[in-house]
Amino acid sequence: MVVLKAASPPTVPSVNKINNGYPCSNGTIKPLITPSPSSFINLDQGDPEVFRSYWRKKSEECTVVINGEDLMSYLSDTSNVCWFMLPELREAIQRLHRVVGNASVGMDKHIVVGTGSTQLFQAALFALSPSDSPNPINVVAASPYYSEYQEEVEILRSGLYRWGGDAREYDKNEAYIEVVTAPNNPCGSIRRAVANCEGEGKVIHDFAYYWPQYTPITQQYDHDLMLFTFSKCTGHAGSRIGWAIVKDIEVARKMTRFIQMSSIGVSKESQIRVAKIIGVICDSYQKIGSSLDSDELFFEYSNRKMRERWEKLRAIVEKSNLFSLAKYPKAYCTFTNNTSESYPAFAWMKCKGGIEDCESFLRNLKVFVRGGKRFGVDQKYARVSLLSRDEMFNEFLTRISNITSDRKYKLN
Amino acid sequence: MVVLKAASPPTVPSVNKINNGYPCSNGTIKPLITPSPSSFINLDQGDPEVFRSYWRKKSEECTVVINGEDLMSYLSDTSNVCWFMLPELREAIQRLHRVVGNASVGMDKHIVVGTGSTQLFQAALFALSPSDSPNPINVVAASPYYSEYQEEVEILRSGLYRWGGDAREYDKNEAYIEVVTAPNNPCGSIRRAVANCEGEGKVIHDFAYYWPQYTPITQQYDHDLMLFTFSKCTGHAGSRIGWAIVKDIEVARKMTRFIQMSSIGVSKESQIRVAKIIGVICDSYQKIGSSLDSDELFFEYSNRKMRERWEKLRAIVEKSNLFSLAKYPKAYCTFTNNTSESYPAFAWMKCKGGIEDCESFLRNLKVFVRGGKRFGVDQKYARVSLLSRDEMFNEFLTRISNITSDRKYKLN
Repeated sequence: MVVLKAASPPTVPSVNKINNGYPCSNGTIKPLITPSPSSFINLDQGDPEVFRSYWRKKSEECTVVINGEDLMSYLSDTSNVCWFMLPELREAIQRLHRVVGNASVGMDKHIVVGTGSTQLFQAALFALSPSDSPNPINVVAASPYYSEYQEEVEILRSGLYRWGGDAREYDKNEAYIEVVTAPNNPCGSIRRAVANCEGEGKVIHDFAYYWPQYTPITQQYDHDLMLFTFSKCTGHAGSRIGWAIVKDIEVARKMTRFIQMSSIGVSKESQIRVAKIIGVICDSYQKIGSSLDSDELFFEYSNRKMRERWEKLRAIVEKSNLFSLAKYPKAYCTFTNNTSESYPAFAWMKCKGGIEDCESFLRNLKVFVRGGKRFGVDQKYARVSLLSRDEMFNEFLTRISNITSDRKYKLN
Repeated sequence: MVVLKAASPPTVPSVNKINNGYPCSNGTIKPLITPSPSSFINLDQGDPEVFRSYWRKKSEECTVVINGEDLMSYLSDTSNVCWFMLPELREAIQRLHRVVGNASVGMDKHIVVGTGSTQLFQAALFALSPSDSPNPINVVAASPYYSEYQEEVEILRSGLYRWGGDAREYDKNEAYIEVVTAPNNPCGSIRRAVANCEGEGKVIHDFAYYWPQYTPITQQYDHDLMLFTFSKCTGHAGSRIGWAIVKDIEVARKMTRFIQMSSIGVSKESQIRVAKIIGVICDSYQKIGSSLDSDELFFEYSNRKMRERWEKLRAIVEKSNLFSLAKYPKAYCTFTNNTSESYPAFAWMKCKGGIEDCESFLRNLKVFVRGGKRFGVDQKYARVSLLSRDEMFNEFLTRISNITSDRKYKLN
């Protein structure tokens, strides 16, 4: 529930300026306040609240109990490249990928845990950058690209790597690193590496959203370096757990080294809890003779939730002369054994009808979203999080539905 | 328990190459194996096992229970500069400093939580570096300095800051950042800023070891930027929780921004657990009419533990013609209301008797330590962790006691 009291929203709404006020930090639930028509609604960040009611039902089953003398050491498994990763977490991650079938975790792969995939992205840049080059390597991504990559690359003005802009426009005869986000954030499309130049390219595959609730699982990927995050898989963003699946042991070693230098490892409390929750998910799929209905199964529940939101949103947008949304091709999902559309975590909305700045237009409706410029494209576009609480999402629909009607009324 | 099977130890023993094999990663206890005379003993890293038996006794009292739907959001307290810090943790940190009296946490201070103080050190470098300068600012520390500072500064070849070496030798007429570690790691001495040049200096105070078990609390520090870590305060290194106490809100804001870009916040599971454990410590000191004996009070227990180790070590070293140890001045501790010596977390040993390389000498005894060169000084020095399990510490004493006798025997 947004309780910003300032009459005007911040110029650049960022996660640290918006008070969502819900839930209580310790996990208890404050009384919900249904957003009023005058409330600000924050659909800028992708804080994943949408699956909360599932975890409320599963709350006890997922409980972890941590005693005073547990998990005290820096070390976890010193026989593993990633010496700070709990073996329980490694096994849970392998099991999850085997259940979902979205990524290969065979014996030839190394898993590196990070404080979210954000830390792993930087570890990957460090590991893939040549250490013996006098010039920084270029890091590119096809636009529209995730709004934070550029700042994450540039923040320390590293001499190892630098931001190289849109991958499609990259034409230098130099080595480069391409970041491929699939499904893409912000636009939801499935991506492949696109940079086409003489230089040698290395690729980081950011698979934050390659889970069955968002998109059909069409293949088990087997790329050199794949990033995943628990935040978007289940909605447990507060745990800050991500992982990389890495083919080359030297790359895994350098990533581990980076995380050692950056934070001497990753919270063990989070690791043990994520292992537990993954275990609950996998158990539910692997119970023989299970009588669970589909809403008891996490990916079925979350896929239905995302589908319902997209259906509601599309119905309103289709009636609108102000917005348009991309259509996603249907594909066969090897996990659900169904053919279906994608239901991305974000709506990538394009304004029509002479509206030049979609972010500002929606801000006038007191809806904070992230404008196209942050993603390297035109400001006619904006990214709208579809991961908020139901109350926020529904209020958003009401507002764009009303403005559509108002505008039509005015235009007539 | 070191179970390295290779006949020769790694060239540079680092945390990821040594298998301590104890305890189990999930906190359960494997049967202890007493180190045999042929075992390798790892006293290189400061993995804090020394206080474990205290936490075993307090295990249930410190228990946290985390349910499936707890702590899911990225956000914690968006009214605070450090928007990802749980209010419970902030309050616990303030309470702990008030109980111990080692640092001022008044209303004019901002607390920033990090994934260990390692992440905060880098956040501080980012926040204190001028963003508008074409040249990186120099980061200096008086030798012997913490062995990881230089690599943490240099790892990404930042254009914002660079390693400037020994603070005492810094004579450039340029702005600089000085890191002051007090008590110092490795040598245990109390430090003040020493760089003496024309340039404008900013100081990061690393107070990782400014707790009553290691050194008398002589004053409540009130510096601009002070770093603390829970790892060395209680021994819960696996939680990866550190905090900065910062005067200037703009510095706190920039540090928060860095942590956002680096890892979008800090594990909430760790935050809630650290808040709980701090609460148990503070409760034990603030219970009116408490009948707790001194071993029930954490800092009394841990101070006794460190004192006992130092007394045993000094007794052996005094008989030796091979090693020497610094003497620490006695001081009045405002926390214990006693006058006492320091009992640092590391012994900073100097080899005598013609031994030129203390690290190699001890490695021949199958004891891994960290040599002086890593700390910017002569290799006659080595840092020996005094935070290991009792079995390791006692085996170390046995070995240096034996070699002393052997050597004397041979010399006679």
